[in-house]
Amino acid sequence: MTHTTEHAPTRAHPDRVHLDNGGRARWHPLARQAFLQAVDDGWADPRRLHTEGRRAAALLDGAREAVAGVLGARTEEVRFTHSHTTALHSAVLAAADGRRRAGGDVVVSTVERAAVLHAAHDAAATHGGRRVDVPVDRTGRVDPDAMADALASPGVALAALQHANGEVGTLQPVEDVHARALAAGVPLLVDAGASLGHVALPPSWDLLAADPADWGAPAGVGVLAARGRVRLVLRGPEDPEPWAPGGVSVPAAFAAAVGLQAVAADREAEDARRRALIDRVRATVATVPDVEVVGEPDARLPHVATFSFLYVDGEALLTELDRAGLAVGSGSACTASTLEPSHVLAAMGVLTHGNVRIALDRSTTEQDVDRFLAVLPGAVARVREMLGVGGL
Amino acid sequence: MTHTTEHAPTRAHPDRVHLDNGGRARWHPLARQAFLQAVDDGWADPRRLHTEGRRAAALLDGAREAVAGVLGARTEEVRFTHSHTTALHSAVLAAADGRRRAGGDVVVSTVERAAVLHAAHDAAATHGGRRVDVPVDRTGRVDPDAMADALASPGVALAALQHANGEVGTLQPVEDVHARALAAGVPLLVDAGASLGHVALPPSWDLLAADPADWGAPAGVGVLAARGRVRLVLRGPEDPEPWAPGGVSVPAAFAAAVGLQAVAADREAEDARRRALIDRVRATVATVPDVEVVGEPDARLPHVATFSFLYVDGEALLTELDRAGLAVGSGSACTASTLEPSHVLAAMGVLTHGNVRIALDRSTTEQDVDRFLAVLPGAVARVREMLGVGGL
Repeated sequence: MTHTTEHAPTRAHPDRVHLDNGGRARWHPLARQAFLQAVDDGWADPRRLHTEGRRAAALLDGAREAVAGVLGARTEEVRFTHSHTTALHSAVLAAADGRRRAGGDVVVSTVERAAVLHAAHDAAATHGGRRVDVPVDRTGRVDPDAMADALASPGVALAALQHANGEVGTLQPVEDVHARALAAGVPLLVDAGASLGHVALPPSWDLLAADPADWGAPAGVGVLAARGRVRLVLRGPEDPEPWAPGGVSVPAAFAAAVGLQAVAADREAEDARRRALIDRVRATVATVPDVEVVGEPDARLPHVATFSFLYVDGEALLTELDRAGLAVGSGSACTASTLEPSHVLAAMGVLTHGNVRIALDRSTTEQDVDRFLAVLPGAVARVREMLGVGGL
Repeated sequence: MTHTTEHAPTRAHPDRVHLDNGGRARWHPLARQAFLQAVDDGWADPRRLHTEGRRAAALLDGAREAVAGVLGARTEEVRFTHSHTTALHSAVLAAADGRRRAGGDVVVSTVERAAVLHAAHDAAATHGGRRVDVPVDRTGRVDPDAMADALASPGVALAALQHANGEVGTLQPVEDVHARALAAGVPLLVDAGASLGHVALPPSWDLLAADPADWGAPAGVGVLAARGRVRLVLRGPEDPEPWAPGGVSVPAAFAAAVGLQAVAADREAEDARRRALIDRVRATVATVPDVEVVGEPDARLPHVATFSFLYVDGEALLTELDRAGLAVGSGSACTASTLEPSHVLAAMGVLTHGNVRIALDRSTTEQDVDRFLAVLPGAVARVREMLGVGGL
């Protein structure tokens, strides 16, 4: 078996075009290489004192340091967790519990991930507070003034605002909101799970969570950073590794760090390349009858595009495209399996059905995009025909 | 890079003899092969509806089914968790919370893992109960009558008894205790984290946790099985995958299952082979002056041996052996990094310092054991000399 050292994921199924690379992308070749190296050199328990244990500990320390370097954080501010979801849960609960004397309210935007919304609800309920939901506009963007008003109310323990929305690509005004949060003395959790590795990350956060699986590293590991000034109180049974009880996989953490360094290195080039492709996708799809191109057109992730098609069932369209060799995402990233309407699209006030998202990774070519654009209009028409709305 | 298909782990450092394979072992070659296959075929999010997502879901379902087959459980009774520790935490909390009407007490043996002891403490505290600690004898074995007495008291929500102790190898009378628990109507959690894949597992459990990293599969994934009759109530923020929020790594789960099938297939042969090696180790080490061979001599894991050396510092001995190319374990598996005295050894009433554990894996040869036995007496003597007790 040979491993490529090219900087684009190899394709196990070359006839397929996979355009659902948000949240879970194919492994970056350098992440794969790092993983295998760490299976050989870092399989042992990093808490052990012998040579093999110390070697594993060194790989884990190196991984934390590398992630901290990309985040602009100190190494000791970075922890690995078991998943992006557990990072968000822990961050919300630990920071809200740590500030319980200030109050029990947790301020969130309505387009945060389900993990943030649920944890904020639980944290607030514990301390007799409430989750304060700040609405977004039709592009999915929160109004910094509305967020600032909510933040400045008495009794707020914590605020959470995502860096970018993974479903629709819209960037949030995190720098502005962080300045207001700082003034109010309220720590801000920034969910960078859809953005880290794709766009520049400002240092405007007190807590930050990021998702290795989104940048082509293994699933089963998450990243949580917290500035030293943030007081954190942990729930759950005592454990030597309370952020990831039982410890994380050293190879997965090492691959996460190496993968992050790799995507950070070519981020600007990949931003330009993928932004141009997405611009073309947005413009071309807009010509399909009865479609809404969703999300902020400019302040957005470079690699994500989302559309809502009137008179189309999202699952049927996804299946139709899949049959043609094209994989796309549909509906909410968090509840795709249940096909519940996306809370993000609902919060934006756009059509929640007939929704399709594409997210390009580093292996996506112009030809892939051409093929998607060639196949899509016919697929939409066929689904509309099946639903008996072909003539519309 | 070539991958061996031999059924023993390859050695990255052939000059080293690694005898600390309890809880974290080198990857089994078939687990490695399965992992890489699943990175190619199962990298996608198994909750997605396209071909790649369904392929990942099929691998995950197959993994659950395979593990269930080895456990003698139904597929839907098996869940993957983020680690063995989170499996134990979730099992104790969810089962105790599910039985809170019956009472708040949780009965445990004093040699359970720290994760069980801490979770039992938390669960009991939540419901106004207490953790009831049942002592063990000098071999580390719990008295089934004492366990039965504790079980039969009013107000017991849950009992936990490990199948075998990973630090000293002693098997517990789980069949006997399960019969008594069944009679008392109290569910029994059996921690098989040190035993599954090494000894036959009786079906005498209501909840069962097992540790893939212990049988040569990746860390970062755990196994939790619960019989359909056990009522479980989950803590923590709502999540579509509450036993592993955010989901587990599909390649890790698939490798865990394939690895388990592989070690189950040659379990009896490996039991006989390793038991004979350990018998020799126990007999030979007993001739070192001032040593106690720890644990039950017969009813024990086939591959584990533990010794306490008088007038020896455990860390110094571990370092001395490491310098000679031999990796061994020391002290408590849960707190090795802090070198706190092992709560297991303390509960047994044996010497808690100067402790060394070896755990053989499938790659351990007779020559490895010869080398350990040749090096050990001199290493012990040198450490005693350093401490100024060389003449004893």
